[in-house]
Amino acid sequence: MSLSFQVLATDGLARRGRLTTPHGVVETPAFMPVGTLGAVKGVTPQELEAAGASILLANLYHLALRPGIDVVERLGGLHAFTGWPGPILTDSGGFQVWSLGGLRTVDADGVTFRSHLDGSPLRFTPEGVVDFQERMGVDVAMMLDECPPWPVTPEAAAASWLRTLDWARRARAAWRGTSGGGLFGIVQGSVYRGLRERAAADLTALDFDGYAIGGVSVGETAPERHAAVEWTAPLLPADRPRYLMGVGYPEDILHATTHGVDLFDCVLPARNARHGVLFTRQGVLKIKNARYKDDPLPIDPECGCPACRRTSRAFLHHLTRSGELTAAVLATLHNLRFYLDFMAGLRQSIQLGTLTEQAKLARRTTGGDAPEGPDVRVLPVSSDPLEQRSS
Amino acid sequence: MSLSFQVLATDGLARRGRLTTPHGVVETPAFMPVGTLGAVKGVTPQELEAAGASILLANLYHLALRPGIDVVERLGGLHAFTGWPGPILTDSGGFQVWSLGGLRTVDADGVTFRSHLDGSPLRFTPEGVVDFQERMGVDVAMMLDECPPWPVTPEAAAASWLRTLDWARRARAAWRGTSGGGLFGIVQGSVYRGLRERAAADLTALDFDGYAIGGVSVGETAPERHAAVEWTAPLLPADRPRYLMGVGYPEDILHATTHGVDLFDCVLPARNARHGVLFTRQGVLKIKNARYKDDPLPIDPECGCPACRRTSRAFLHHLTRSGELTAAVLATLHNLRFYLDFMAGLRQSIQLGTLTEQAKLARRTTGGDAPEGPDVRVLPVSSDPLEQRSS
Repeated sequence: MSLSFQVLATDGLARRGRLTTPHGVVETPAFMPVGTLGAVKGVTPQELEAAGASILLANLYHLALRPGIDVVERLGGLHAFTGWPGPILTDSGGFQVWSLGGLRTVDADGVTFRSHLDGSPLRFTPEGVVDFQERMGVDVAMMLDECPPWPVTPEAAAASWLRTLDWARRARAAWRGTSGGGLFGIVQGSVYRGLRERAAADLTALDFDGYAIGGVSVGETAPERHAAVEWTAPLLPADRPRYLMGVGYPEDILHATTHGVDLFDCVLPARNARHGVLFTRQGVLKIKNARYKDDPLPIDPECGCPACRRTSRAFLHHLTRSGELTAAVLATLHNLRFYLDFMAGLRQSIQLGTLTEQAKLARRTTGGDAPEGPDVRVLPVSSDPLEQRSS
Repeated sequence: MSLSFQVLATDGLARRGRLTTPHGVVETPAFMPVGTLGAVKGVTPQELEAAGASILLANLYHLALRPGIDVVERLGGLHAFTGWPGPILTDSGGFQVWSLGGLRTVDADGVTFRSHLDGSPLRFTPEGVVDFQERMGVDVAMMLDECPPWPVTPEAAAASWLRTLDWARRARAAWRGTSGGGLFGIVQGSVYRGLRERAAADLTALDFDGYAIGGVSVGETAPERHAAVEWTAPLLPADRPRYLMGVGYPEDILHATTHGVDLFDCVLPARNARHGVLFTRQGVLKIKNARYKDDPLPIDPECGCPACRRTSRAFLHHLTRSGELTAAVLATLHNLRFYLDFMAGLRQSIQLGTLTEQAKLARRTTGGDAPEGPDVRVLPVSSDPLEQRSS
């Protein structure tokens, strides 16, 4: 089998979908927690399930460096290795390779780089990256792409796209589907509408199992990021899942959802948690602030995460100020649950046909402690544990 | 009510007991995971329960410094504050105060010291420490004691004991029992048999709700530590719980159990976990070792912890080598489960009358990677989840 994707309901451009993979079903729109090395930082596979995650994102670049694809393959693939039995998507590592700057050299055939860990040489080619992901048995593999820097001239962006398109063709041809999963193409094109539109058309002709919008969250402004989504998403095949890579704040996810995107990933909820920045239905909350020293309320009274079910803002303030490991664990579990509840709310609203209206009400005003993100008070964050579990 | 303690079965000097507290029952012999600041490092209250813990240890000294007793009291006491609904024992902080060295001055009435956090002055008196613990609503409070250094002369140890005895009288008189819990006395006396025996008799006359053996694990040899237990434990009242403070390796716990000790605490399982040193039924395992890179087995095939149920030594090796937070979390959950299963096995063996025989078989040979601790292969580590949960 390969992936299958059904659109169950629509609300404007927004889609309520169901992605079926060899390792389970993903109800969309869905957020994929980031487990770069195979685990979300501080979170057991069991806790990730309990939070309501249905699909995990891992990173081929990091796994190729450590422990190495051979090791993962010998140990029965990425699911057996990590203990995460559900669907897994691996990013191809293109983004990470480009981030290496001077440590890599690109030629028409692929990219050669040095490990950021020990300097050992590695080579990624479009075919090799497909092969790595098939050997790890992932449910969704991503093609190797070139993520242009930002800012970039239109000419350089167009030249970069030609290379990525060539790699897309080679990746598509190399994909054997032995893992039963699917291969996604990645639309690039930077902030240039014509190039994004052309890239969407080029990739659609290659008949990928799904389509990602890449090259965002690289430094561009929010309006530029939103525009890239608005130009690209509607041009992608309606019967395939659409994935916005590395985005973002709840407002960004809401915006993209209303333009027809189905899948998201971002390190934000986990990274912010480790810095004591918590998402709540009342706005963003910086738990280190002295005002929380005596606060007996849960982080978010409507949340069902392990922290909110048992302890107070005061306790998390105390653990965070004390630099305790448990602070990072509880905060991460909370923020992940918030994001996953938020996605459940989006799914519910699309099903009810109320998302477009609710999205109009969501403003870029700031709630809580600081402008860490938009106010999500009017957004439909689900707190129904059944919806959470069944999705 | 106060504490109640029943001895349900004996095997030689070993006791299978039941300690009933205002917040629940503790089946003994029991291991108390250390949550100095109110949480075991990296572990949620829910995970601690799932591992089979029945009682949590916290530390008055650390809590008095941060967040302060007033804060804990205002927030409804230590149970409400931490989200741990079961029994809690707080150490008085005597040991921590003595560790401060030059930062503290002792007089007959108590001890004045400076916070190791911000240098602010604090004062502990026998009455104050009792009051702090009552205000936090703990189930078991510990008296303020003086922990003599090691080595110490017989004269200095005896003088120290006189001070501790005076503080014991004052603590006993100050204890009101408003929290419904109990107050434990602490036997000191260093490595001197006569002094230990006298201290046990002195304290017994004061009718504490339980008795601790303190002043061990301060640098003395294992035979000296074992001797202190062998001299002291049998002299303590048979109808009260006995607690060996800060001990230790499974072999130490086994030894003390066979001499009639009921309660234990130690940072060892959690601290070792954070350094990649794992306890298993096959011996100690240093997960960073290259030999585990490809090892598909669970850490301990008989263990039911979240790590062993889902992942391999290879995955934990990978996460540990990568410095991932999840490595510390999974390893801590594993080691705690090992200790708690080990205690369940001891309880079972006492019930069956087989502990004395099994203890003879336990040798100081080393299993696994390195002499981090004794071989516990012949010890009765329970892997029965029902026994775990019901205890």
